[in-house]
Amino acid sequence: MIRVGIIGVGTVGSHVVKILQENEDIITARSGKRIIPVMGVVKNLSKKRDITIPLSTNVDDVLDNPDIDVVLELMGGVDEAYAIVTRALKNGKAVVTANKALLAYHRYELKDLAGNTPIGYEASVAGGIPIIKALREGLSANHIDAIKGIMNGTCNFILTKMMNEKVAFIDVLKEAQALGYAEADPTFDVGGFDAAHKLLILASIAYGIDVKPEEILIEGIEHISSEDICFAKEFGYNIKLLTIAKKSGDKVELRVHPALVPMGQMIAKVDGVMNGISVIGDRVGETMYYGPGAGGSATASAVVSDLIDIARHTQNSPMLGFITPLEKSGLSLMPKEEICTQYYIRVSVTDKIGVLSQISQILGKHNISISSFLQKQDALKANSAVLLFSTHTCKEREIQQALAELGALEFVEVAPAMIRIEA
Amino acid sequence: MIRVGIIGVGTVGSHVVKILQENEDIITARSGKRIIPVMGVVKNLSKKRDITIPLSTNVDDVLDNPDIDVVLELMGGVDEAYAIVTRALKNGKAVVTANKALLAYHRYELKDLAGNTPIGYEASVAGGIPIIKALREGLSANHIDAIKGIMNGTCNFILTKMMNEKVAFIDVLKEAQALGYAEADPTFDVGGFDAAHKLLILASIAYGIDVKPEEILIEGIEHISSEDICFAKEFGYNIKLLTIAKKSGDKVELRVHPALVPMGQMIAKVDGVMNGISVIGDRVGETMYYGPGAGGSATASAVVSDLIDIARHTQNSPMLGFITPLEKSGLSLMPKEEICTQYYIRVSVTDKIGVLSQISQILGKHNISISSFLQKQDALKANSAVLLFSTHTCKEREIQQALAELGALEFVEVAPAMIRIEA
Repeated sequence: MIRVGIIGVGTVGSHVVKILQENEDIITARSGKRIIPVMGVVKNLSKKRDITIPLSTNVDDVLDNPDIDVVLELMGGVDEAYAIVTRALKNGKAVVTANKALLAYHRYELKDLAGNTPIGYEASVAGGIPIIKALREGLSANHIDAIKGIMNGTCNFILTKMMNEKVAFIDVLKEAQALGYAEADPTFDVGGFDAAHKLLILASIAYGIDVKPEEILIEGIEHISSEDICFAKEFGYNIKLLTIAKKSGDKVELRVHPALVPMGQMIAKVDGVMNGISVIGDRVGETMYYGPGAGGSATASAVVSDLIDIARHTQNSPMLGFITPLEKSGLSLMPKEEICTQYYIRVSVTDKIGVLSQISQILGKHNISISSFLQKQDALKANSAVLLFSTHTCKEREIQQALAELGALEFVEVAPAMIRIEA
Repeated sequence: MIRVGIIGVGTVGSHVVKILQENEDIITARSGKRIIPVMGVVKNLSKKRDITIPLSTNVDDVLDNPDIDVVLELMGGVDEAYAIVTRALKNGKAVVTANKALLAYHRYELKDLAGNTPIGYEASVAGGIPIIKALREGLSANHIDAIKGIMNGTCNFILTKMMNEKVAFIDVLKEAQALGYAEADPTFDVGGFDAAHKLLILASIAYGIDVKPEEILIEGIEHISSEDICFAKEFGYNIKLLTIAKKSGDKVELRVHPALVPMGQMIAKVDGVMNGISVIGDRVGETMYYGPGAGGSATASAVVSDLIDIARHTQNSPMLGFITPLEKSGLSLMPKEEICTQYYIRVSVTDKIGVLSQISQILGKHNISISSFLQKQDALKANSAVLLFSTHTCKEREIQQALAELGALEFVEVAPAMIRIEA
């Protein structure tokens, strides 16, 4: 028998209790043990909840309870959650958490603290998709060349609508908020921060690299315009918020940003609120994992799979995928400005003679060569045009300098926009 | 240190040796141990091989070798492989196998024989995709409602070409043979038998059900015609060889056959030699797994992941997913004739008055109602027409009887063809 205490009984926690109770037959058959939710800790006891386990407002009732084997941390946040998980581990209790922010900041401390005590966190990345297990165990024979993920359902819902129905960002965002797919303050999702937390967790498993969110390139989808959608369609791309980890020599690129992705790629076909993660291994090639990245029931499915692994004693896999550090490889984070990729650039200009020549000159000076070009008259403004380029591969530093110089040109009407291309 | 003996050193075996040697850095860091291929057993020593381990022609050199911890069975076939794996287990050696036929027939005997000795078989289904792990561990909280897989790359290559390039089955088959995607005798692949073996392995993990290949519905793709492709395109379907496991009450449908799949479904987007497996869990909803289902390097990636799991002692997960049998559920195989689904029917007729009325009468008598209808003149034969129907959901028994009656009509020129629809 495995006895579980749940700290934070919201949507996910309630679904965990339901699954443990309603699917008890199959869970017991698969794990060889009964897994029983014995106690929940909540902030507010008066809130109505559709579950039947005893509740407390005192975390000590779980953390210091000798009858509890596993602590389920579902409260969210970083500092308080870290304190609670730390206490649970020190008390010898296994931990399961769905808290990506906690892991984005403290995964290495927790690994060291846990030692041989299991910490499950399958639910922290891509909800119901077992991507942690796939990467840490299923693909363990491979050097990971790259990971490209769509790991934020809110952004993918918005971008899919913008592509398919030509609705503006701000209008789809409102719809997403009405449907409960986006928060009242959507910054954490649409700004790319949620996806960045998940990326750092996967990057640790793939590369053994210890990086904090503040160190990596993070851009959101707020500035995607109808012209960008139009260019993407014209040249056979979809636009996705991608989380990218990529090995180049002894450097690892880690970045989250909207990207133009060729329609033929499997990852470009992941639409709506769904998540998809494509992983390129040096031996297996590309595998992709698709499914619901959020939602109480899907996330709880991942939490319970961790509990079953603990019951089966299969959580012997090293928490972050490595038992000994990858000393020799000496992988380190690639500085943002060293990133090389293709770019798409949007420049709004006053339509007059010599404009294209001056722009081309600036691009040429920075070793940026143009791959495709589309010019459109500005529908809203007479005598204005929008120039849309894609480039061959060049350096982030050069693009940023070129964009700054373009923005300073007298005939350029607003700061030029850029979206990276992942071909 | 884990010492591995390999029985059968062909394409996959050679790649296993290469991965263990060339990726030794990351494998050691991830597993905490060195995993060393120490001996290979082959039929023919004189054959040139690009590997550097000692070879023998005597299986005893591996099976009775006290210096070998894990036996890798990569020889294929059923009876001899079963004898060898049995001996390995009796000698206390862990086993890793890529042999789907062996498991399709003997998985339950092997499970009982193994007890706590690990048997890894990730490579036996869908090559490099870690679908065994996903189903057995990642989705363990779920009752599995359905599995729909594209698990034969040869068939998917052929069907993709037929859909995209309007080439006839026999011509694409020749191309596939020339490219090495199909065997000289392609029956095992195009007849659906290879996919059926894989399906039975997944069905055991999902449902704890013990079924042999002879008991389930297996149809191949040999009879798909250009008219079928045409109908599929007209009504928004792709045609795929699907392996289907589906729970209906206390029965489990297990079937392998070509199917019309709506273009919007993620599984319909899996093209070429790639595999994809969609799994519907009662809690998580749909997740899908995509990647290379064959090939030496991809398959070896899965084999080595099993070796790493053994080194990490994470192979404590029950071999077939269940520790105690699912007695209560009492799931059993649904008889073929009880299957309910939608159907597409192709009937070639002499084009004369009253034909459609007689056909409709027969369908009506068997409670089959028509959903879509397309009539085409036969391009090659004057005064002939091809009638293409899709039906609403009805019973397999009724369809089979109706097809027999249609085939007996005087104006029906060849036996009617049928493809099931998976909507």
